Amino acid sequence: MAVDVPVALLGYGNVGSAVARLLEEGADDIERATGHRLRIVRALVRDPARERDPLLGEGVLTTDFASIRDDPHIAVVAEVMGGLDPAGEYVLELLRAGKPVVSANKQLVARRGAELFSTASEQGVQLRFEASVCAAIPVIKVLRESLVVTNVHRVLGIVNGTTNFILSQMEQGAEYAGALAEAQRLGFAEADPTEDVSGADAAAKMAILATVAFGSRTTLEDVEFEGIERVTQEHIRAASEMEMTVRLVGSATLVDGKLDVRVQPSLVDRHHPLATVEGPFNAVMLQGDAIREITLEGPGAGGPETASAVVADMISVIGTTGTGFLQNDACWRTLERLPRGELRSPFYFGVEVDDQRGVLAHIAQRLAGHGVSIARLVQLQGEGSATLDIVTHEARAGAVETALSEIAKLPETLSPPTAMPVISSRGVTGMGWT
Amino acid sequence: MAVDVPVALLGYGNVGSAVARLLEEGADDIERATGHRLRIVRALVRDPARERDPLLGEGVLTTDFASIRDDPHIAVVAEVMGGLDPAGEYVLELLRAGKPVVSANKQLVARRGAELFSTASEQGVQLRFEASVCAAIPVIKVLRESLVVTNVHRVLGIVNGTTNFILSQMEQGAEYAGALAEAQRLGFAEADPTEDVSGADAAAKMAILATVAFGSRTTLEDVEFEGIERVTQEHIRAASEMEMTVRLVGSATLVDGKLDVRVQPSLVDRHHPLATVEGPFNAVMLQGDAIREITLEGPGAGGPETASAVVADMISVIGTTGTGFLQNDACWRTLERLPRGELRSPFYFGVEVDDQRGVLAHIAQRLAGHGVSIARLVQLQGEGSATLDIVTHEARAGAVETALSEIAKLPETLSPPTAMPVISSRGVTGMGWT
Repeated sequence: MAVDVPVALLGYGNVGSAVARLLEEGADDIERATGHRLRIVRALVRDPARERDPLLGEGVLTTDFASIRDDPHIAVVAEVMGGLDPAGEYVLELLRAGKPVVSANKQLVARRGAELFSTASEQGVQLRFEASVCAAIPVIKVLRESLVVTNVHRVLGIVNGTTNFILSQMEQGAEYAGALAEAQRLGFAEADPTEDVSGADAAAKMAILATVAFGSRTTLEDVEFEGIERVTQEHIRAASEMEMTVRLVGSATLVDGKLDVRVQPSLVDRHHPLATVEGPFNAVMLQGDAIREITLEGPGAGGPETASAVVADMISVIGTTGTGFLQNDACWRTLERLPRGELRSPFYFGVEVDDQRGVLAHIAQRLAGHGVSIARLVQLQGEGSATLDIVTHEARAGAVETALSEIAKLPETLSPPTAMPVISSRGVTGMGWT
Repeated sequence: MAVDVPVALLGYGNVGSAVARLLEEGADDIERATGHRLRIVRALVRDPARERDPLLGEGVLTTDFASIRDDPHIAVVAEVMGGLDPAGEYVLELLRAGKPVVSANKQLVARRGAELFSTASEQGVQLRFEASVCAAIPVIKVLRESLVVTNVHRVLGIVNGTTNFILSQMEQGAEYAGALAEAQRLGFAEADPTEDVSGADAAAKMAILATVAFGSRTTLEDVEFEGIERVTQEHIRAASEMEMTVRLVGSATLVDGKLDVRVQPSLVDRHHPLATVEGPFNAVMLQGDAIREITLEGPGAGGPETASAVVADMISVIGTTGTGFLQNDACWRTLERLPRGELRSPFYFGVEVDDQRGVLAHIAQRLAGHGVSIARLVQLQGEGSATLDIVTHEARAGAVETALSEIAKLPETLSPPTAMPVISSRGVTGMGWT
């Protein structure tokens, strides 16, 4: 009774071949779930002679994009080729031709989302993109289908596995350079790791998540980001002393109708759900009215993991009506950006000082002058100097920054302090986290 | 352009009124997402004079079930009345009448699932039940729609908020009785807490999760469960000493095509995602081939949280084709039960012994005699006695049980030991957990 559904792939690399394998091995599961059998009839590649796969029948590999776009039988196309060009034009042409598309392409969705989604809406076809953020973790589906009426007002995420692996290694005692080399050896980091360690990759993912969560187009340019290059063993030690851990955390926050999206190294309380995200794993916490908070954790990368999300999206396209479960373009409003410095949070900073009488008073004065008060202080004695680890109460980021620039100029200050946001527990009842 | 969609509720208590509020407050969100406006046209109650709500229009509250069943305009009915009777008959009649149903009723789904789902399938209508397990955490949707091709082979869950709250309080130093009283004071535990503290509630949820995850009908009778009544401060202390925490963990495991479902107090490694689940929160970890593991965490109970899942299911019914995204009855095979005692795991036990030379050798001998080896041992000196905290390597549950019954009979043993499974880290790379 199964209905045969022809599908096509753009690209047949790591993810594409994993999609083919999952469709083959999972064919019975898919039929039981949907009543359909998905069959790859075309896969676009550069050189069909080079990329062979016994999973694909004769003549499936093709260099002819038009043969996919113009085939009226193809019900859904998965874009797993990556890159902006020609992937972007291909997806646009497919949507214009009325073909539903599933994309695993984070850069494409983050940079050309407006154009792609409006085309999909105009044509009344689906564009799904679960695999573009956090691989197999179904955060897009949950945001769009399960949390429709929950007024999500904050998204917190560890959305880059490379940096999380490096920070996890540093917690075991490795220095940054050694941890990075180990990540490269294991294939978690690329030869040029800039995109990951600079926070740019996480920023693109946070732009996508903010767009979906808040219904306002958020681009890479809207995201302030900082990477992990400046995280040291000193930060790791200080965090550990205070029962916290250093993580690269992306946050997207609605404050009085204004939007703040950023990626920064942060100190996370050991009891917080994000604190147990280790190695190359990712996690996203969604905070909203009716749900308080939901956290999704899992592997944030990998061929089979990404392919699993692509296949789930293909099945969702087949299983839902019209333009999909949801209207394509979730962007129904334009939110202003919260001015830089206005976001409120507790902050951590460490400062090395000459061990003189009165130095603490000077620092506290500078903080108080900008309305920043101290919640916790740990003093670590050195020879003639001392390190102060300070956690503030919730304060404006801008106020903390200004106070720290003043503290940096104090004659007793031996090294200029920098602040990291602290993500802490609200209490012992587990009723929620700030 | 919005299409008006009449819906009905069975029951109008805590959850029902929260559903009405979410439908009202979220009407624009729902319309943006689906193109539809859901409007409650009937709500079945016992006494319409008693339960009024300005949210509901004149004549919406009714005692007449047939007026819901026989109204051809009603597109979906949410059963939020709870209990087995008459809820079960009502749901059956609705399905037979061709009406899609959303149910928040854990006992109903766990006990009468076979009958309900086969009726839904015969009639070609949807029966959704997200809210029946872990309130707002979308574990059913993720299992059925995102993980279709991932061969889930293990589900681990903290699925009862009451017991998790009590254990969290005990970690702060409270005794069991005091923690239970506090849970009752805060409304997390009922006056008669038996259903929760005995593990029966968690067992019903694990039965539902196992059914969906493995496609084989699992009933309450298939689940071996033990509650938290015997957890003491001694267990909490021992766990803490070994950087672990005591949690009531449900597990559903496929072992060589056989099924094991159980609920037991367990020791969870501090770095494991389940270890940061605190207070009344729930979490479910899904382990499968393509995804390795995905963990979902959030509030496991509460009116708005449950209503959020009910509304999401109602929207899903409206937004998907035919019998729903998936065929209704996921049960396509009948799995044999793994014989009791065959499940393999590392185990913890504590034993108080006379502090005599050779006692450790006797204990190790008894364990070795059944193929159980010791992975970690902590000895705590008392006056004339000692407490041994022992973690074994992975072993058959039955072998550990037999060894412990022999150890209980040793003349040096002062109190009979009982075993708890240990859920530990696989390594430092965060590649996965056993």
